[in-house]
Amino acid sequence: MVGGGFGGLSCVRALREAPVHVTLIERTNYHLFQPLLYQVATGGLSPANIAAPLRGILRGRRNVHVLQAEVTGFRLDVRVVETSSGDVPYDTLVVAAGSRHDYFGHPEWEQFAPGLKTLEDAIGIRGRVFSALERADAASDPAERKRWLTFVVVGGGPSGVELAGQLGEIAHDTLRRDFPQMTRETTHVVLIEAGERVLAAFKESLSTRATDALEQLGVRVRTRTFVTGVDDRGVEFKPAGDDSEPTRIEAGTVLWGAGMRASGLASLLADAAGLEADRSGRVPVGADLTLAGHPEVLAIGDMANATGEDGRPLPGLATVALQQGEYAARLVTTRLEGHASPRFQYRSRGTMATIGRGHAVAQIGPLRLWGFAGWMLWLAVHLMQLVTFQNRALVLMQWGWHYFSRSRSARLIVRGTSNEDKDGAASATAEGRASA
Amino acid sequence: MVGGGFGGLSCVRALREAPVHVTLIERTNYHLFQPLLYQVATGGLSPANIAAPLRGILRGRRNVHVLQAEVTGFRLDVRVVETSSGDVPYDTLVVAAGSRHDYFGHPEWEQFAPGLKTLEDAIGIRGRVFSALERADAASDPAERKRWLTFVVVGGGPSGVELAGQLGEIAHDTLRRDFPQMTRETTHVVLIEAGERVLAAFKESLSTRATDALEQLGVRVRTRTFVTGVDDRGVEFKPAGDDSEPTRIEAGTVLWGAGMRASGLASLLADAAGLEADRSGRVPVGADLTLAGHPEVLAIGDMANATGEDGRPLPGLATVALQQGEYAARLVTTRLEGHASPRFQYRSRGTMATIGRGHAVAQIGPLRLWGFAGWMLWLAVHLMQLVTFQNRALVLMQWGWHYFSRSRSARLIVRGTSNEDKDGAASATAEGRASA
Repeated sequence: MVGGGFGGLSCVRALREAPVHVTLIERTNYHLFQPLLYQVATGGLSPANIAAPLRGILRGRRNVHVLQAEVTGFRLDVRVVETSSGDVPYDTLVVAAGSRHDYFGHPEWEQFAPGLKTLEDAIGIRGRVFSALERADAASDPAERKRWLTFVVVGGGPSGVELAGQLGEIAHDTLRRDFPQMTRETTHVVLIEAGERVLAAFKESLSTRATDALEQLGVRVRTRTFVTGVDDRGVEFKPAGDDSEPTRIEAGTVLWGAGMRASGLASLLADAAGLEADRSGRVPVGADLTLAGHPEVLAIGDMANATGEDGRPLPGLATVALQQGEYAARLVTTRLEGHASPRFQYRSRGTMATIGRGHAVAQIGPLRLWGFAGWMLWLAVHLMQLVTFQNRALVLMQWGWHYFSRSRSARLIVRGTSNEDKDGAASATAEGRASA
Repeated sequence: MVGGGFGGLSCVRALREAPVHVTLIERTNYHLFQPLLYQVATGGLSPANIAAPLRGILRGRRNVHVLQAEVTGFRLDVRVVETSSGDVPYDTLVVAAGSRHDYFGHPEWEQFAPGLKTLEDAIGIRGRVFSALERADAASDPAERKRWLTFVVVGGGPSGVELAGQLGEIAHDTLRRDFPQMTRETTHVVLIEAGERVLAAFKESLSTRATDALEQLGVRVRTRTFVTGVDDRGVEFKPAGDDSEPTRIEAGTVLWGAGMRASGLASLLADAAGLEADRSGRVPVGADLTLAGHPEVLAIGDMANATGEDGRPLPGLATVALQQGEYAARLVTTRLEGHASPRFQYRSRGTMATIGRGHAVAQIGPLRLWGFAGWMLWLAVHLMQLVTFQNRALVLMQWGWHYFSRSRSARLIVRGTSNEDKDGAASATAEGRASA
């Protein structure tokens, strides 16, 4: 099993009773609850609230061995995974390495507009956001101050909407109370989306409600807008289909939530199997999630290009990865029992996105919820899903406190993560040593 | 006011009613509760539990302006502090920039044996400790495994004892439950102290009790032992006064808790005033904590060489810094009222150190406590001192959980902080992007 995210962990858990040995290879030592990453990036939660050590989660599972290592290659002919801690042999291989955002042919934009997929991303973005406020406070030049108070989020999917909503809240509350010299009017949060509307996966009425809620938080929503350039001082964009000159916004912080590109392991795996990865870098898999010519190798989650019963590709959602992980475990056990396995069937569990304190949109079958009711549902579902009891209780408490006090206690700027410290932690520590 | 630690913050707070404008210059955006740093370094608490945003703490103080900036120089003749965000003029200057550990003429040891003074230090040490366990688990060579399971702490003061005790607990509990292949017998925690006994500031009976408690946790205590070399694979040391060849321990993790060297700002300040810093790099100050020839400049806390009424230098304790901060504020207000100010008098509040779950030693005037009673006192005092309500409640809850479950939920290895990632966060992110 490669990957300790939703897909990998659900597969390992579902193999609890199976007469198999499982080696779980993961490059971090924790399982990350990605849907709440934006809360870490905006100082509402601490990293440890949404990341649980894998060894703790899998404690007592005698048939599981956790290996913290980086996967460097696959040798499917001899059934071996190459890792930074040596070769790992297997009978059945399940790969669930996830995805990152896509910069549509402009990888150089990533340094200026980071995406939010890992705990390191979240800690880095948290440093950028809160040092932008500090820099704005210290700036004497009004243009410079305005630039530091301008935040641009690219991509109007759930993660872009959640980030923009949180930034709007920060501008609304945190600024007013902790930076008395700045007002909400001086802060600009812009959400850029290439499509017709934000939250395109939702019904149109919910998209409209989400847009209204964002605008109430002071977020300017620009749909049908394409980004044409990103640098260290701002963003350029123009309306879809328009040939005019691009418009430029000077912005101290640009965050990226658009597109989807599979983990580099997906193309490594496709190459090893003699297959071709798709445009998003995903491995093509069959109806039983195995690779063509390699029935003993499965790819699941974001990095797999699987097709639903309707012939359309499955969306990159946590619920898809969870169900695919359980399916992969069932495939292993039914094979051991000598049975054939049916095709993978995805059962939609609905989808939801939160916009700010006390506001979310949710769509579950025919049910549509928004506003405070949507938020209560969102809260309940996410708390239920948090994997360990301690996290659940701590997060609930932190949210309760956050809800009533509107404070953001986890807004630490850790060195090596602010805008000017791009050389990273090692050099920043050396500097810290010399000067304080 | 330079520095947002115990000294700086207590001074700013004590100036609440004074008719003055205060600019608090601090290079981070938070106040750090240093006495609990070792809990972050060993995965018991999250960084945000012991670090509170300065703007949150000082919210509503109309006479305080917080400036997040690095101090780069002092121009005492024109009464200006030079910072990374421009010059800051002052009428009275109070500097409280703290200290780091001392490597006794071997600064090159720091990269192999980091000290624990900042949040970055703690996150880095946490990464080292928990990736050492992962590496030991993945190692096939027994010597290599033994090296990764050997932890050396240099310095038997309170912070060294606390770190060694926590490492002993990790070897005791975490290992047994999460790394079933390893046993307590394979793990070695060594505490090296140059003096006669650990916790030299305490009565001898408490030192003995602390040593016993450490040994029960599996920590080997070596007193009267001098470190003669540190490199990336271990430590060399020999008995005090002995001319024999040094002994070597192969150790995957070496931590430094010995010595005290004032912040680089102390010598900058001393130079600016035409004074000479002492052997530990501290600024000499008079009985009213001002610099000779500059009655408008005060230095307080660890970075100041102040003398007690008995003619002996004051210890580098949080209580000293707290009281000096309050004194500095009183000095400012009495001067404004035209009065002369009495000399600074330190009132000892006692001292305590914790060794592990449910064990601490405390000495308060004639009172001596140890074991569980000492720990309850330690817990009460530290919870009282935590600056914000949310931190207090969250920390108590996390400790309660930790106490009963013995889990360490905050043991995240964040990239750029493990032993092999010494190039820092920037390169680690690039690598993470390519491979997962």
